[in-house]
Amino acid sequence: MRVGLLGCGNVGAALVDLLDRQRDAIAARTGLRLEITRVAVRNLEKARGVPLPAGALTHDSAGLVADPDIDVVVEVIGGIEPARTLLLDAIKSGKPVVTANKELLANMGVDLFEAAGASGVDLLFEAAVAGGIPLIRPLRESLVGEPLRRVMGIVNGTTNYILTRMSEEGAGYADALAEAQNLGYAERDPTADVEGYDAGAKVAIIATIAFGVSVVAGDVYHEGISGMTADDIDFAHRLGYEVKLLAIAERDDDGRVAVRVHPAMLPKTHPLATVRDSFNAVFVEGDAVGQLMFYGRGAGGAPTASAVLGDLIDAAANRRRGTSANLGAFPRAAIRPIDEVRSEYYLNIDVVDRPGVLHSVSGVFAEHGVSIRSMEQEGLGDEARLVFITHEAQESAMQATLRDLRELDVVDRVTSMLRVIGA
Amino acid sequence: MRVGLLGCGNVGAALVDLLDRQRDAIAARTGLRLEITRVAVRNLEKARGVPLPAGALTHDSAGLVADPDIDVVVEVIGGIEPARTLLLDAIKSGKPVVTANKELLANMGVDLFEAAGASGVDLLFEAAVAGGIPLIRPLRESLVGEPLRRVMGIVNGTTNYILTRMSEEGAGYADALAEAQNLGYAERDPTADVEGYDAGAKVAIIATIAFGVSVVAGDVYHEGISGMTADDIDFAHRLGYEVKLLAIAERDDDGRVAVRVHPAMLPKTHPLATVRDSFNAVFVEGDAVGQLMFYGRGAGGAPTASAVLGDLIDAAANRRRGTSANLGAFPRAAIRPIDEVRSEYYLNIDVVDRPGVLHSVSGVFAEHGVSIRSMEQEGLGDEARLVFITHEAQESAMQATLRDLRELDVVDRVTSMLRVIGA
Repeated sequence: MRVGLLGCGNVGAALVDLLDRQRDAIAARTGLRLEITRVAVRNLEKARGVPLPAGALTHDSAGLVADPDIDVVVEVIGGIEPARTLLLDAIKSGKPVVTANKELLANMGVDLFEAAGASGVDLLFEAAVAGGIPLIRPLRESLVGEPLRRVMGIVNGTTNYILTRMSEEGAGYADALAEAQNLGYAERDPTADVEGYDAGAKVAIIATIAFGVSVVAGDVYHEGISGMTADDIDFAHRLGYEVKLLAIAERDDDGRVAVRVHPAMLPKTHPLATVRDSFNAVFVEGDAVGQLMFYGRGAGGAPTASAVLGDLIDAAANRRRGTSANLGAFPRAAIRPIDEVRSEYYLNIDVVDRPGVLHSVSGVFAEHGVSIRSMEQEGLGDEARLVFITHEAQESAMQATLRDLRELDVVDRVTSMLRVIGA
Repeated sequence: MRVGLLGCGNVGAALVDLLDRQRDAIAARTGLRLEITRVAVRNLEKARGVPLPAGALTHDSAGLVADPDIDVVVEVIGGIEPARTLLLDAIKSGKPVVTANKELLANMGVDLFEAAGASGVDLLFEAAVAGGIPLIRPLRESLVGEPLRRVMGIVNGTTNYILTRMSEEGAGYADALAEAQNLGYAERDPTADVEGYDAGAKVAIIATIAFGVSVVAGDVYHEGISGMTADDIDFAHRLGYEVKLLAIAERDDDGRVAVRVHPAMLPKTHPLATVRDSFNAVFVEGDAVGQLMFYGRGAGGAPTASAVLGDLIDAAANRRRGTSANLGAFPRAAIRPIDEVRSEYYLNIDVVDRPGVLHSVSGVFAEHGVSIRSMEQEGLGDEARLVFITHEAQESAMQATLRDLRELDVVDRVTSMLRVIGA
């Protein structure tokens, strides 16, 4: 089987290297001999340090895709164009494709799924979500018959690293971010990670596969971690919680799908609460299977190449058998807006310290039907700090409560609000 | 697609129920309409409480397998016979089979794999290991190209429940076992669980799929948890460890496979150390993918039925496409005996409390080339307790050390020895 590789950066080079080491073992296990015969790159002069056949490198990515000698196309360029056009061309010419491109799938996945369905070829993308963790395959195959309710993940390693430093060392957000940048976990401009855009693209793909309806990045509600303070983490610990940036996809009884990314408090005993450093994990809940979690490396050249290789072997095996396991086109999801999502909430409010304040504050909760599960009061000189955990409430009611609390004379400020995920 | 079901106990009934609820959703997602048309049971009179077509129940399991109207056979009887004969007959007649039978696979799997390879039909068994957790499919598909080094799992929920009670409540072994029996987690005769036979069958299957060589239950070295004491757990905690019953499959550089089940100390920060109660989890290590963990319910009717259903959909889809994804026959594994396995060790020894004792004891370690990483001494009146953690050593050297320690005059007894898994 001759493989054409589009892009040879971090992941591409790791794939060339991994395949070179594993070629004989794969042949022994599967009967497939995989050779990367052409690699399209921008810079032909750059040393790749990986074992490629002479003359494999080319500028001509369109020619690679059209080459009748190429059996499977692997795309690790990233970004929307030219990846989209190249993959569509490959699919239309009947070639199975493997991609690690979350941005493309989360935004224009519907075009690719339709094309793959029409051409009857494989479109595989395990590496696009949660790096090396086998997640897409279990969701689309093992769990295709399972009544899934919710999929909830730590799918961004950068932010999990930052939150782990804040949690374990009491670091502030800025210091933890600087450390992540020094270690190369965070970009110079960390916006895509810390504001939840990267996790948002991934949860759109997860929701699409888990629920069988098309969800796009634009459907995802976002809140990042740049507002998190050491105090928030400290309060979470005192109440028995950890704080994680969660990407959550839920389906309600009417089949509507809610997709959101925000920091959340999780009980310390929750499996996701134990996921440390830059690791990723995805927690899956179904009516029959109960709770599942998939844990591992969500990024990095070698883990991502491992996921690409698994897909590549599958695509090649299907091609040899003359079959494909494409998913076809997904109907567009009915999206449940964030206002209608229900959650528990943690609220931290500074108030003036005088009698009757709690009465006024609790009146605002009551007015909007938000029920208080627990409250702690702490004196701060002239002020007092009130920390509430609510029972489950609707987001719109909580937002109305926040608005009215801010207008209350006795409230100096609402220091923070975090959603709480029950056990 | 007409499905014949062999057995209708806990798992079988849950499957009938789950498929009934999910039939339309599965048809919408996959285009497959699955009907369980015949069910072979021992007792036709017993109320099943599940929606089966009239006349579906039969005594005639051989007739069900031979029935030309049955497209796929699902076996949830358990045990070696008649399951083995029925599955071989189904395979030979060209029918894909799905089984949850770990005992059969771990002992006579080679016959089934060979028959499935010869007939070109699917033999799927996700439910045989770790219940509802998608593990076999990720290992055989996603990770088939990955250079896997070690797979290490908590694959017996009963013992994990017992160890969790001992760890979290300081319960003794007998009390924790009694509690597990009261809750229905442990059998009246708990031998298969607590002595590691159940976990041993599962790790034989895991090793076969992970490394692509045939490993059988008889290859697995066993130690159970019935000798564990509250003191052992207490010492583990003080040293920063949890104790878990681990099933471990390792491949060395020569391709030899070591398979073993024994209690082990794991650092508290290890992902497996956080797996509580009756949950299962399997930790997978590969050169490229790094560390992975799969977590979920390892037993129970509904989770196991979920795994069977995933396989059933796959088998039916392959049958419709006229293909199969069978693994063929595996070559017999070269087994590395337990004597040659390397590990760190925890050793707890009661000695007489007089000068020079540590010198004598450490001399025995030195004589066998076992290097000591840390030691703690604690006075106990006339006696002292020595607690050692060694560096990595070979099992045979550790066993020789133990033998000689027991013969030393100053040693009253070796209270316990546990293997330690590094971070």
